[in-house]
Amino acid sequence: LATRLANFGPSVFSELTRLAAVHRAVNLGQGFPDFAPELFVLDALRSAAGGPQQYAPPAGLLELRQALSTFLTSSCGFAPDPETEVTVTVGATESMHAAVQALINPGDEVVILEPSYDMYAPQVEFAQGIVRRVALVPDDAGHWCLNLEAVRALVTPKTKALILNTPHNPTGKVFSYAELAGLAELALEFDLYVLADEVYSHLVYEGEHVSVASLPGMRERTITIGSAGKLFSVTGWRVGWAVASPEVSTALRAGHTFVTFAAPTPLQVALTVALTHMQTLSVTAQTFRQRRDQLAAALTAAGLPPYPAQGGYFLTADVSALGQDEAEVARFLLTEAGVAALPMGVFYSPATRPLVPRLRFAFCKSGEVLDEAARRLARVP
Amino acid sequence: LATRLANFGPSVFSELTRLAAVHRAVNLGQGFPDFAPELFVLDALRSAAGGPQQYAPPAGLLELRQALSTFLTSSCGFAPDPETEVTVTVGATESMHAAVQALINPGDEVVILEPSYDMYAPQVEFAQGIVRRVALVPDDAGHWCLNLEAVRALVTPKTKALILNTPHNPTGKVFSYAELAGLAELALEFDLYVLADEVYSHLVYEGEHVSVASLPGMRERTITIGSAGKLFSVTGWRVGWAVASPEVSTALRAGHTFVTFAAPTPLQVALTVALTHMQTLSVTAQTFRQRRDQLAAALTAAGLPPYPAQGGYFLTADVSALGQDEAEVARFLLTEAGVAALPMGVFYSPATRPLVPRLRFAFCKSGEVLDEAARRLARVP
Ligand SMILES: CSCCC(=O)C(=O)O
Ligand SMILES: CSCCC(=O)C(=O)O
Repeated sequence: LATRLANFGPSVFSELTRLAAVHRAVNLGQGFPDFAPELFVLDALRSAAGGPQQYAPPAGLLELRQALSTFLTSSCGFAPDPETEVTVTVGATESMHAAVQALINPGDEVVILEPSYDMYAPQVEFAQGIVRRVALVPDDAGHWCLNLEAVRALVTPKTKALILNTPHNPTGKVFSYAELAGLAELALEFDLYVLADEVYSHLVYEGEHVSVASLPGMRERTITIGSAGKLFSVTGWRVGWAVASPEVSTALRAGHTFVTFAAPTPLQVALTVALTHMQTLSVTAQTFRQRRDQLAAALTAAGLPPYPAQGGYFLTADVSALGQDEAEVARFLLTEAGVAALPMGVFYSPATRPLVPRLRFAFCKSGEVLDEAARRLARVP
Repeated sequence: LATRLANFGPSVFSELTRLAAVHRAVNLGQGFPDFAPELFVLDALRSAAGGPQQYAPPAGLLELRQALSTFLTSSCGFAPDPETEVTVTVGATESMHAAVQALINPGDEVVILEPSYDMYAPQVEFAQGIVRRVALVPDDAGHWCLNLEAVRALVTPKTKALILNTPHNPTGKVFSYAELAGLAELALEFDLYVLADEVYSHLVYEGEHVSVASLPGMRERTITIGSAGKLFSVTGWRVGWAVASPEVSTALRAGHTFVTFAAPTPLQVALTVALTHMQTLSVTAQTFRQRRDQLAAALTAAGLPPYPAQGGYFLTADVSALGQDEAEVARFLLTEAGVAALPMGVFYSPATRPLVPRLRFAFCKSGEVLDEAARRLARVP
């Protein structure tokens, strides 16, 4: 077997979903909506049975790239060219994979901000890049803060790119304009690419989403990644997009072509139709904000007040009230309380894992499921 | 940009489809059916709108893996364990990519038989493997022959795997039991894996499909790759499968997880339903055989008698009657006759490309389209 996979195990997210089922637990572990998507989304999928069923072009159906360009223009503040700058992939996961393969040579360094979505580091290492980590740390009010000077101190002549995720998984942090402008300044000064994972851009509850590519000078050095799964609460569709300069897009498409060839045609058609009928993004954000508040109240009542989260799918909480070992606390909540949550350690490297025990709880769930989670958490001794 | 992609351009198949549209040519270039899939297949897709829309497990929906195991048991003569030996991927393309990444260390050698589907060599090179090539050569009757001794002569201590494709793209060769037994003997003698691309296993017109994994001793060293797109004439669905030993499957799944995470749930559901309703594989083969014969007659009438093909989507023909440079002949047919066909050179490395000019013609097209191709070919001077 190839040694490149020696350190890779099964997905922590899927494992927890499996365990949640075994223990009949309320699953606040993996970040997927457990309620039905909107009817127009399911109708769009149904209508795809009447459309083309053969290979799309590797870059994606042109109609979809046009619809995505329109969407990004209105929601993200920049207008990519559908022909040369938008590439449709198999979920945001493949977008990030293809972007990393297109940019990172063996030995190139990539800065990531920890806690960090658990795919980034393996994807960089798979391309034989070297991961450099900067910690986001909660201040006294619990806001996860970026230390720009710590990022600057990490940059070397080998630094090629910075992976940024806003709104952020797992913390729910929405990076401010000032923070992003600071990072952009670094990117311009040191000639870095920014891989901007913005899959939760439509789910901001306080403040405002700022797309990295919309900042002055950043358009040509940013790869903006989005996801139909997140936009329409259909994480199983696996349609994502990567928006980049024509030059980067050409490289990214070349890699994508012999990894997956093209994203599935019927789901590209369904997404095109759904984007056309979409009118309710702010309604979606309102619903998710209520769910966030509902779960925050439940956690607070259970003695586990969460850190403030301004966007995305997740709340995080210090669980030292229940024990010092977060994996043990997670196991206890799973088996004794019947609530599945994810130890935050999975978002750090073993060497940088903080001592404070913390768990991540997903609130992208139905109101009833969150009510049940609240009841179960209330019983925790 | 990363240097690993420097030699990779856009897909030759998609480029030709684009050019065919520009020239209003009959597209016998890219291998996709241009007729509607069967109704039960479209119904299966429609029904998926009523099913789950969230992440499947990375290995694939268990129901689908069970249905695939049943299908393989009846069609390929071996019964894989759905839990540990079947992995659902984004098309056969991702199956091959994941298999190569799971097996090939930098410097490992992989034997491929030329002409060879154009994805294999880039996928091996992407994993920093070294491609070794053995030519299939037509005998006097036009049957593409395997020289087993030439394969044996290529094997070194660094040889890790052999990529085999039966029925074969582009030649239409269906490897005989004796040929496969000879290759299996080599694999056992030298401890090689066989990556068996069997996406056309249901499209055999003469002789019989033999699955490599069904040969004695080969089960644990074979990765069998299949494709829903080919099975149900829906190449845009991008659902494939890789069947391998539990150990190889574990490695393959680990790579797959951070490349695409999981294949799209609605299409996995649709495929599960379609497999359950499938009754007509031999009818499909009969239809494709008629299309093969129809195109063969047209090519023969136009003075381009094809090589015999026993399976798959394609016919190949010596086109020296029209010129010595196959790329020029292809351009001439595209622009002057309005028929798009693929120069066989794309299936060789520049160093091994034969002098005989040959084109590949896809017959996985509707009868009317093949009729029109016949009319256009008849007019070629
Ligand atoms: C791809 S499975 C993980 C889903 C997710 O984004 C999360 O739970 O963090
Ligand atoms: C993935 S596009 C190529 C389709 C095909 O198998 C071929 O034309 O050979």
